[in-house]
Amino acid sequence: MRTQVAIVGAGPSGLLLSHLLAADGVESVVLETRSEEYVAGRIRAGILEQSSVDLLRSVGLGDRLDREADPHRGIYLQWPGERHHLDFVDLVGRQVFVYGQTEVQKDLGAAARARGQQVVYEIGDTALHDLDTDRPSVTYTDAAGRSQRLEADVVVGCDGSFGPSRAAVPEAVRRTWERTYDYSWLGVLADVAPSTDELIYAWHPDGFALHSMRSSTVSRFYLQVPNDTAIEEWPDDRIWDGLATRLGHGVDGWSLATGAITEKSVLPMRSFVQQPMRHGRLFLAGDAAHIVPPTGAKGLNLAVADVALLAPALVAMLKGDHGLADAYSDTALRRVWRCTHFSWWMTTMLHTSGDPFDQQLQLSQLRWVTSSEAGAAGLAENYAGLAIGS
Amino acid sequence: MRTQVAIVGAGPSGLLLSHLLAADGVESVVLETRSEEYVAGRIRAGILEQSSVDLLRSVGLGDRLDREADPHRGIYLQWPGERHHLDFVDLVGRQVFVYGQTEVQKDLGAAARARGQQVVYEIGDTALHDLDTDRPSVTYTDAAGRSQRLEADVVVGCDGSFGPSRAAVPEAVRRTWERTYDYSWLGVLADVAPSTDELIYAWHPDGFALHSMRSSTVSRFYLQVPNDTAIEEWPDDRIWDGLATRLGHGVDGWSLATGAITEKSVLPMRSFVQQPMRHGRLFLAGDAAHIVPPTGAKGLNLAVADVALLAPALVAMLKGDHGLADAYSDTALRRVWRCTHFSWWMTTMLHTSGDPFDQQLQLSQLRWVTSSEAGAAGLAENYAGLAIGS
Repeated sequence: MRTQVAIVGAGPSGLLLSHLLAADGVESVVLETRSEEYVAGRIRAGILEQSSVDLLRSVGLGDRLDREADPHRGIYLQWPGERHHLDFVDLVGRQVFVYGQTEVQKDLGAAARARGQQVVYEIGDTALHDLDTDRPSVTYTDAAGRSQRLEADVVVGCDGSFGPSRAAVPEAVRRTWERTYDYSWLGVLADVAPSTDELIYAWHPDGFALHSMRSSTVSRFYLQVPNDTAIEEWPDDRIWDGLATRLGHGVDGWSLATGAITEKSVLPMRSFVQQPMRHGRLFLAGDAAHIVPPTGAKGLNLAVADVALLAPALVAMLKGDHGLADAYSDTALRRVWRCTHFSWWMTTMLHTSGDPFDQQLQLSQLRWVTSSEAGAAGLAENYAGLAIGS
Repeated sequence: MRTQVAIVGAGPSGLLLSHLLAADGVESVVLETRSEEYVAGRIRAGILEQSSVDLLRSVGLGDRLDREADPHRGIYLQWPGERHHLDFVDLVGRQVFVYGQTEVQKDLGAAARARGQQVVYEIGDTALHDLDTDRPSVTYTDAAGRSQRLEADVVVGCDGSFGPSRAAVPEAVRRTWERTYDYSWLGVLADVAPSTDELIYAWHPDGFALHSMRSSTVSRFYLQVPNDTAIEEWPDDRIWDGLATRLGHGVDGWSLATGAITEKSVLPMRSFVQQPMRHGRLFLAGDAAHIVPPTGAKGLNLAVADVALLAPALVAMLKGDHGLADAYSDTALRRVWRCTHFSWWMTTMLHTSGDPFDQQLQLSQLRWVTSSEAGAAGLAENYAGLAIGS
């Protein structure tokens, strides 16, 4: 089998890339180890930046998003006794949208089917070959157990941190940076209307808590927990007590509505960057090149930004103009490191470390961010997101 | 001996407090363990915030300062290959002034002599008594070896981190926060015209460097060094080589002028806060309550801000109105923690920790601070300083 662009991974980066390429007449095949149902059902990020929404709209993926996404002007930041709203629209003229990654994935899947996009699910033994040549290929075993080879002009790794693409960059070439945080998130999905109109990021001596939402009837919560936490340690009552304490401490007249918990899981917090994001005819996009802790809501948006940069670069490259493709890694990495820093900053400002000096630094920083226009604008600019390509 | 306010310590906070009190007709006596020459000769901070300058001017201490201080619109931030100017005047409408603490001390000493201020130097065995009563006192041994007792309505500890005042707050009452950094500064004074018009803060893989100045003929330099550094490890040649590398790396067309090094010393980097800043009839101001690492140029300015808040509080208290005095600790500590956070932030952004992930976070942060208006304004607002009392 031969195509122009072999895309490894059918998550949001892979499917969005195939969509953007198709719009410019470039053919691609998407390869995915998981089933379509599994990929569509994964619960992940829920916040889209203005730039991500603008991009999705501009390529015909905005219809359901415009009907169903919940635009938010900003977020709440709080600590015991104080809750402050940061209005991103007032501060930097941009907003964010609550629209789950599962919904983006559904829209991308529907668009792929509509255009007859080849997506090969449930493959195994994926391996990348001849990346240093202009005839790279991907071999794999298909769902029926047959060995296959996909030849292409270019291979793009959209297969996340544990996929084979990033490891296909020779060790002598790649550099990686990693940080594991001393805490995890207990993520909870509950059938209850959100007790807030916009997200609440709460600093608390017991640990960080986040009140997010998926819809008018489904709320999403996160609690900072130690790294070795077993889910059994957190029966539903303990979760609601913990959330009520961390989110309600000293906030007069506010209470947390509770409901049936439908999903809970422990999520590790990790930063990871691999560079360069291009090696020969292999390009990396999204989680294949970088992981951020979820505190800044940057993971999905960073993947969208990568792909938005990469698609026109590949279109030009396949016509013989290599300028954008040659610049891709450096350009993308500027944003990656900006978002990596912002995600680290949000994470370390809001999670308790157990160190009393850190605690005072955090509270002083929170007071500054919620009282200084420059402080607030700095957070807003990063959270609402930079223009793509900047 | 009896006075209204017993001030322990004749550094800038103690002498400025006596000056402000005298202007409102409140009598004080200043007690100091060191000699007048020693106190006047100590080389310390060199940057005054706009608010500090405004205060000094408003109480008749601005004449020489206005003639001799060097107003700076901002600072340079750099890393290998890039040097950026942040213009505080454009960003936040305030500037800073290069005027050594030694000069402030001389001005305060001259003003004290001119008004016949009692300053008792070279005392020993200082001890604070009856702070919980309205008849506190300080006992000491004078230069002639005689035991003395100074009775007062109020005692103010302006005697720094190692003086007896802060330790006179009972352990059950006081809380302290401390952080020691993993590096120190090698401070160098040299007889050479500065090679820059404004301060250069340089991030470098070898370690932080700062090019500051005292006058048109005297430059002040700092180099990040390990904590256990002995001064003998840094002969003059090594200092100039280190400065040229860290300050000049990739900055085309710039070179460092060298000259005779007249002083060098290793300065530890430490954050320390003790609260409350008032206990009964004892008030703490300046280094007695808080130490910041020097990266943000906040130590002297924080002492000035404490005293500017404390003087009117004491004047009112001695007339029977305790409101400002009761609020002093909380009001002062808001600024203390803001400056403690800023000093920590500048320090950790600019000093190499040896961790490669930190290094990338630092570079991304520096790029953001020098390219985002919100980022630049956030640094400027903190560096040029908040209004006193805010």
